[in-house]
Amino acid sequence: MKEVAVGIDIGGTFTKYGIVDKEGNCLINGSISTTREKELDGFLKVLKSTIDKAATSIKEAIEIKGIGAGAPNGNFYKGTIEYAPNLSWKGIVPFIDEFKKHYDLPMFLTNDANAAAIGEMVYGSAKHMKNFIIITLGTGLGSGLVVNGELVYGHDGFAGELGHLTIVPGGRMCATGRRGSMETYVSAPGIRRTVFELLADSLEESEFRDVTFNQLTAKMISDAAKKGDKIALQAFELTGKYLGEALADTVAHTSPEAIFLFGGLANAGQLIIEPTKRHMESNLLKIFQNKVKILPSGLTETNAAVMGASALVWKELGN
Amino acid sequence: MKEVAVGIDIGGTFTKYGIVDKEGNCLINGSISTTREKELDGFLKVLKSTIDKAATSIKEAIEIKGIGAGAPNGNFYKGTIEYAPNLSWKGIVPFIDEFKKHYDLPMFLTNDANAAAIGEMVYGSAKHMKNFIIITLGTGLGSGLVVNGELVYGHDGFAGELGHLTIVPGGRMCATGRRGSMETYVSAPGIRRTVFELLADSLEESEFRDVTFNQLTAKMISDAAKKGDKIALQAFELTGKYLGEALADTVAHTSPEAIFLFGGLANAGQLIIEPTKRHMESNLLKIFQNKVKILPSGLTETNAAVMGASALVWKELGN
Repeated sequence: MKEVAVGIDIGGTFTKYGIVDKEGNCLINGSISTTREKELDGFLKVLKSTIDKAATSIKEAIEIKGIGAGAPNGNFYKGTIEYAPNLSWKGIVPFIDEFKKHYDLPMFLTNDANAAAIGEMVYGSAKHMKNFIIITLGTGLGSGLVVNGELVYGHDGFAGELGHLTIVPGGRMCATGRRGSMETYVSAPGIRRTVFELLADSLEESEFRDVTFNQLTAKMISDAAKKGDKIALQAFELTGKYLGEALADTVAHTSPEAIFLFGGLANAGQLIIEPTKRHMESNLLKIFQNKVKILPSGLTETNAAVMGASALVWKELGN
Repeated sequence: MKEVAVGIDIGGTFTKYGIVDKEGNCLINGSISTTREKELDGFLKVLKSTIDKAATSIKEAIEIKGIGAGAPNGNFYKGTIEYAPNLSWKGIVPFIDEFKKHYDLPMFLTNDANAAAIGEMVYGSAKHMKNFIIITLGTGLGSGLVVNGELVYGHDGFAGELGHLTIVPGGRMCATGRRGSMETYVSAPGIRRTVFELLADSLEESEFRDVTFNQLTAKMISDAAKKGDKIALQAFELTGKYLGEALADTVAHTSPEAIFLFGGLANAGQLIIEPTKRHMESNLLKIFQNKVKILPSGLTETNAAVMGASALVWKELGN
């Protein structure tokens, strides 16, 4: 019997699942709509029958050891999804309690970035690290902190919200109603806003002078930077400055061995890693200088969230 | 036989020691000069003979279970004191290795603020807390972070340097050569600098218009604030603003149950706690609001560093 874990990644539109072994081989995966069933109960029924069907389609004999799920605002301690802005279930959703009605298995929930941190630790590039951080750069900025080999959940299960560090007092407006949060600068929409600020501020020629705000994507910015577009290059320089300066403060908190960058914007590679590293170093206290690696994540992006969620099972069961 | 631990607090001028039982009763304590013996070896000989004499003077039968020491830039992992600016031993000092030549006992070293955190956990107000932070406000700003019941040492043993968060980019000059570090604003010298900035900026009457920079102390500022001196009150308001805003970012990292304030400036009580709490709350992400307590340390300041250092023994021996 091959021991496997089910990983589930709950997103605003799709919920992905995978059945993964201890070595990180995904035996089968797929997805269902998160929104087709309005009520949680209906959604969980569809999710269960889909997973069960997938499990029986695997030719090897398997034993499911547990289920791990990642969701926006997922709370590890309580197994709840709390006030997730992109999900249709409102308020505090007792996800684990409800899903336990369908499965008599160990079940764990956390947020997406924490799941990515655990994936990095179990299957990725942080296998031998006890102290590291993962920064997920997508439509927002998520983060997972690992200290002494354990994920930092904090007193309430919500620790590791580096996207909401205030990096520019009175700065850009954030969907949370606050201003100057890191994710309004360092994320796919953040770098888009930076490009538009630069287009307004400078007289530099740029291919983006003929692009609307809604047309612009982070991918277009990295493509343009690679071709030498000065506005695009400067946008990456500034993004790295914002991120690097903030990470210097993060290092003063937990002094990690490495900081992994993951997700859409991280795919720009050295365009984002080089300025981040340079600005972090120039803001570090001497005792921390030239010690902290900035690395691309070792998880491939396809299915990384599902992999991370499944890794939560191995981590928590101590396998 | 009563089990006891030796606590040692190495300061620039004096080195204090105490022999402490598991309940936090200090059976005897005293101090020696840190500077009279130029070499580490001579210092350790005097320290050992002083501790031995103190131990024999205790009437109860005791068994010393270990020795804990706190020192500026003390490294828990390596047992070294590294580039401590206020100590006459230069470079990297192998403190534990050298002291082990004198005692065949478990021996632990950390920095002063980490020792205070452990003291708070073992004897103080954080006995039942798994996630908390201590901020020590003296001539500098030190900090100790506790996550999942364990001290955060980080990859290199130097984590928890919140005094060196950059809170004002390009701000006040710091002894480290950097600018805008939190401890240049939030510490005894920091609030003194704030008073002088306010004297320069405003036209407000203040008793400090007749006081020189070198005469001014943090104690004078809290005394004046209690009497209603507007400059002094404003200085506490600003100090709380700087600290509270920074702590909001710290909460986003580790989401602690409580943040303890300890040391000289913390003795100002609500003068510093109230504005710190208010500014922290107004900068917190919604999920963290009204959850994190700001509390005075439960350690009495007399001997707190020695107590913390002794607590390191109980913590590490798992007693």
